[in-house]
Amino acid sequence: MPSLMMQSGSRAMQTKATSLPRSAVAKTVRSRRSLTVQAADKTVVVGLAADSGCGKSTFMRRMTNIFGGTPKPPAGGNPDSNTLISDMTTVICLDDFHSLDRTGRSREKVTALDPKAQNFKLMYEQVAALKRGEAVDKPIYNHVTGLLDPPERIEAPKILVVEGLHPFYDPEVAKLLDFKIYLDISDEIKFAWKIQRDMAERGHSMDSIKKSIESRKPDFDAYVDPQKKDADMIIQVLPTQLVPDDEGKYLRVRLIQKENSKYYNPTYLFDEGSTISWIPCGRKLTCSFPGIKMFYGPDTYFGQEVSVLEMDGQFDKLEELIYVESHLSNTSAKFYGEITQQMLKNSTFPGSTNGTGLFQTIVGLKVREAYERIVRDEKITA
Amino acid sequence: MPSLMMQSGSRAMQTKATSLPRSAVAKTVRSRRSLTVQAADKTVVVGLAADSGCGKSTFMRRMTNIFGGTPKPPAGGNPDSNTLISDMTTVICLDDFHSLDRTGRSREKVTALDPKAQNFKLMYEQVAALKRGEAVDKPIYNHVTGLLDPPERIEAPKILVVEGLHPFYDPEVAKLLDFKIYLDISDEIKFAWKIQRDMAERGHSMDSIKKSIESRKPDFDAYVDPQKKDADMIIQVLPTQLVPDDEGKYLRVRLIQKENSKYYNPTYLFDEGSTISWIPCGRKLTCSFPGIKMFYGPDTYFGQEVSVLEMDGQFDKLEELIYVESHLSNTSAKFYGEITQQMLKNSTFPGSTNGTGLFQTIVGLKVREAYERIVRDEKITA
Repeated sequence: MPSLMMQSGSRAMQTKATSLPRSAVAKTVRSRRSLTVQAADKTVVVGLAADSGCGKSTFMRRMTNIFGGTPKPPAGGNPDSNTLISDMTTVICLDDFHSLDRTGRSREKVTALDPKAQNFKLMYEQVAALKRGEAVDKPIYNHVTGLLDPPERIEAPKILVVEGLHPFYDPEVAKLLDFKIYLDISDEIKFAWKIQRDMAERGHSMDSIKKSIESRKPDFDAYVDPQKKDADMIIQVLPTQLVPDDEGKYLRVRLIQKENSKYYNPTYLFDEGSTISWIPCGRKLTCSFPGIKMFYGPDTYFGQEVSVLEMDGQFDKLEELIYVESHLSNTSAKFYGEITQQMLKNSTFPGSTNGTGLFQTIVGLKVREAYERIVRDEKITA
Repeated sequence: MPSLMMQSGSRAMQTKATSLPRSAVAKTVRSRRSLTVQAADKTVVVGLAADSGCGKSTFMRRMTNIFGGTPKPPAGGNPDSNTLISDMTTVICLDDFHSLDRTGRSREKVTALDPKAQNFKLMYEQVAALKRGEAVDKPIYNHVTGLLDPPERIEAPKILVVEGLHPFYDPEVAKLLDFKIYLDISDEIKFAWKIQRDMAERGHSMDSIKKSIESRKPDFDAYVDPQKKDADMIIQVLPTQLVPDDEGKYLRVRLIQKENSKYYNPTYLFDEGSTISWIPCGRKLTCSFPGIKMFYGPDTYFGQEVSVLEMDGQFDKLEELIYVESHLSNTSAKFYGEITQQMLKNSTFPGSTNGTGLFQTIVGLKVREAYERIVRDEKITA
């Protein structure tokens, strides 16, 4: 696939100079173990909010893959650690800041979604310390036992990703975040996915699944969902509009991009600022049923100006993906075909043939761009 | 407006080498008065079919303006002549080949739409002679008196346009046509236009207008409408889909372009062969109500592969037109902005702010391209 790697003069390619040369990156990583930190060493903090079971870990793997290395739990630590460390990124799970373990929540009659079950003060202190470049001893919430395990040592990475139910619920924690992402799965799709996993794979009954969803919904709507209005980018996952589909087999995925972000420029289709719908399948591409429909246009989101990029349907051939990529602009890719290359590299991940994979990859590239802009700005002000 | 004239490297610009240099054109025009004709001197014949009162003359003025000069009736001839002559084009009206004048049609109880009222044999002979480069003495149907006037001398032009009700009805005449255009006005729009003209301007009653339309419809449907399936390009004029509009104030205009034409490549929007709808109004352009919606996509038309380009709504600012033009490809324009320049030059013509003017201009450019391809091919085979 050498053509994907080829530098090209095309409009689709936006080569960006990395503000930090490779050798400097490596050097900074090494010097980070010291507590003496310079301005330019500050950790960039990314928040990812989503409900449980909504593909945060897939998203994280796509994002960390862009920065290189294989995400692994801390070496020699607790096998039930929720932390994933790779070359430049460390992903921590905010469940580790539960103030109440499973027994405690049961006793107090609160769900894991309730702010009462979270220790926001500790979350703030430890994220703030990591942001300053300091190592912390972070608790571990053991999802297997439901207990809080002894803490693990977390060193300050280049990029810290905090993922969980409440990354921007607490205003103090929210202020620490340089970039906020919200993964918004519609109720229909959550239900379809839960059916598939809990009924087909775990043998739960339809009734118990419905009850479990309904019991979570009030707290989810009260404490998790409202965070999305503050995100810089939102990935919204909806049922397809191409065909009737109760099983969530095909997805309509929308990438909601805030305008006037300091850290990224929204990706667009063909003509920035206009409204476009595009069915790339036609005389040159033969898509299989139900095909692909892309949409792009301006909109408002909780009173804020946004640009929406949408993909309904799924790819079934490599040519289709590279064809779609070549018609997107401001993707933050560093070379022609980078999105397709990333999607191919992660082709076994869920969502690789639809808009969730595509937009998670684009968000990953935006995070890289945001990271590079922040590092560059700090170098200037340092 | 110097920017419109500027040569540019943009995708929208398709500079085509004119196969015949300007001096050669002038020389050929002069030598045309002789009956000794070489292969390369053959007249290119364009047929334009449409109902009466559907803007054929506006279309003709747009088309002849592209080739230069001001269309005028033959100098010193019958003041009621239907012929228009300019530098390279001569437009003749097929009403001149009526076999029955107004009295005759009344006596025989046939409408002007009936093939019985046309002299297809003479039409064939004279178009064939002009195509061979020979002058003819063509009758004149006097629309004022309803009589057939003494003939006028018509010299063979570079481009002969035959416009009227039946340019491709007769198979022998149809074979003489190098390029066929059909102007297809929907019944709703015909009605709205007729109301506007005959009721508002001529004081006819609504009832008499309805009767007049209904009395023409059977013959129109039988003899005129079926020609459209054979056209190379069809301009279809429909009511807007943007807003409710009974008055035909806003138009949805479709340019139906046959695929695999020997003489032209269809104009497309953004991505050839795909399906696109585009609302160019947004953050960069502020269109006035109800805005503009463009569409492009593949389709079939009477079983033939076509590409459809569609515009709904109207321009209200120059920037909008140049903006739309810059996103069209394969327009057959010779320089960036040529369509906008033509539309501005003809801004007093009806339809200058909507898709009829835009697509008539594009069809004019396609006729020029077809003419140049034919002349080039003849030079090669000569």
